[in-house]
Amino acid sequence: MNNIIVALVARPEGMVKESDFDVISKPVEALADNQLLIKNEFLSLDPAIRGWMNEGTTYIKGVELGTVMRCFSAGQIIESRHPDFKEGEYVAGLLGAQTYALSDGKGLSRCNIDKGALSLHLGVLGMPGMTAYFGLLEKGKPREGETVFISGAAGVVGSTVGQIAKIKGCKVIGTAGSASKCNYLINDCGFDAAINYKEENVHEALQTHCPDGIHIFYDNVGGPLLDTALANLARGARVVICGAISQYNKKPMYGPSNYMKIVTARGYINGIIVFDYIHEYPKAVEEMSQWLSEGKMKTKEHVVSGIEQFASAVKMLFTGDNFGKLLLQV
Amino acid sequence: MNNIIVALVARPEGMVKESDFDVISKPVEALADNQLLIKNEFLSLDPAIRGWMNEGTTYIKGVELGTVMRCFSAGQIIESRHPDFKEGEYVAGLLGAQTYALSDGKGLSRCNIDKGALSLHLGVLGMPGMTAYFGLLEKGKPREGETVFISGAAGVVGSTVGQIAKIKGCKVIGTAGSASKCNYLINDCGFDAAINYKEENVHEALQTHCPDGIHIFYDNVGGPLLDTALANLARGARVVICGAISQYNKKPMYGPSNYMKIVTARGYINGIIVFDYIHEYPKAVEEMSQWLSEGKMKTKEHVVSGIEQFASAVKMLFTGDNFGKLLLQV
Repeated sequence: MNNIIVALVARPEGMVKESDFDVISKPVEALADNQLLIKNEFLSLDPAIRGWMNEGTTYIKGVELGTVMRCFSAGQIIESRHPDFKEGEYVAGLLGAQTYALSDGKGLSRCNIDKGALSLHLGVLGMPGMTAYFGLLEKGKPREGETVFISGAAGVVGSTVGQIAKIKGCKVIGTAGSASKCNYLINDCGFDAAINYKEENVHEALQTHCPDGIHIFYDNVGGPLLDTALANLARGARVVICGAISQYNKKPMYGPSNYMKIVTARGYINGIIVFDYIHEYPKAVEEMSQWLSEGKMKTKEHVVSGIEQFASAVKMLFTGDNFGKLLLQV
Repeated sequence: MNNIIVALVARPEGMVKESDFDVISKPVEALADNQLLIKNEFLSLDPAIRGWMNEGTTYIKGVELGTVMRCFSAGQIIESRHPDFKEGEYVAGLLGAQTYALSDGKGLSRCNIDKGALSLHLGVLGMPGMTAYFGLLEKGKPREGETVFISGAAGVVGSTVGQIAKIKGCKVIGTAGSASKCNYLINDCGFDAAINYKEENVHEALQTHCPDGIHIFYDNVGGPLLDTALANLARGARVVICGAISQYNKKPMYGPSNYMKIVTARGYINGIIVFDYIHEYPKAVEEMSQWLSEGKMKTKEHVVSGIEQFASAVKMLFTGDNFGKLLLQV
């Protein structure tokens, strides 16, 4: 039985290139005691992948050249010599861009497919959904009646943040890069307004939509848009830095020259590292799956087929060509 | 009796110029009911002055062209038709760059000269000292054993922050722009280390002096130094933005490209607006004057004589040519 592996073979400067990856095939290794073998069904394409391609470390080591690319994936256990895991169970974790993954069970989370289809456990019920949930609730601390502004709102994190904020009684405005994404935010996700940043003047749109200023800015994008949001903060504002998708291929990153606006707003800038909440995921998955089943929350997937499409799918994250949570069906 | 007034006559682009001010003389107006007349003894030269010269508003309106330049000053009441103020009392407030000031009493604070000389009420016992006290204690929240890093540490705010942090049991490191200022920080203010940013590599020095990272960064300077500090934060770090003296003559201001370090540090960036604590000044003055009298706290003044020196004294704030709290003796 052969394992098809997407290996990182070069560290990109700037934009990710297809030649940064190589697809190789090698036999699946035999299981040792306390190991299990997972057949991956879905690979998750997340902006964090770009950071893992770099040598430098932030909160986790970069991927070594020549080894399997790190990514979240979900699949079924097809063999187990581990006492805590059984054949047939579904799990998700950093299992890498490959068709089969050996694991010692560490860092794996079980996917209860009664709570939602397996692919959802890589999206709204997985790491991105948890990032939205804990980032908004623990770091943004929304209060009823407040205004929440989200950049990159049509992504799985952004659209989930917005829908949770609506559930919590907030006014929600988001940016996206096309009219169809903006329509999706308003018509499907219940946003109060959506700003097409490619067509509209975001500063003017914010002045229209947020006459009392922004109480929570949840930032997935970074760059000049961060400065625009800072210029429109309400008193006591919280800025939650989740990502900076517009800047991951740039060096140095754009620094927000309006950073002192956080001082005059008497607010603060903090951020979300979702792994810090790993022990609280189950209660969040429970609550989110409830919202999904009640129709209070919607989510959208963009599924690409074939592991050999990994590199081109990664590029879509940065061009914005995907619409919905980007997944690779193995 | 004539009043000598320093009026703002032009809004500078970039560095302040002497021609932005004009010195004029006109008769002192007669007192109305509920007014008092103050003879200014000291004018305070603070970085905030640069912002007040701009048209745009941040937390307070810019000074109108042709009118007296806004600044803090302290003096003695020489006439009063106000029920709450008596002739002979000492007061401080935004009385402007002039020899005599009419006031309705609003925003004035009494200077108890038993607690310290009048000039100290514009420095360590005045607005800069309060900025240090509340910025460090309320926004930085120091804990014993933590490492506090201060930029612009030889200024009255920075040196006061450092000394309060030492009283609270912290390790304290600061930057300054000359060997004599660094010596002052170590020998007089009790800092654990001082970094001459003009001669040393600050990043390397921080790695040496803060092996466990920076728990509190109190920033008076901004610019690339802010990025260097962000790159050296400890987990749970608090960044207190007080000012950005290196950037006030620049447009746009330098934005910190390392801002996402606050996310991986699981910390937050906030700032201090001292006016928010005005009702708590008396208890802080009490505590600070106690520390001064016990020799636990030291302060340094740089006094320039003659109101016509106002413009050249303002420029010193940005060249760093002053050493100690900059005051103009009227």
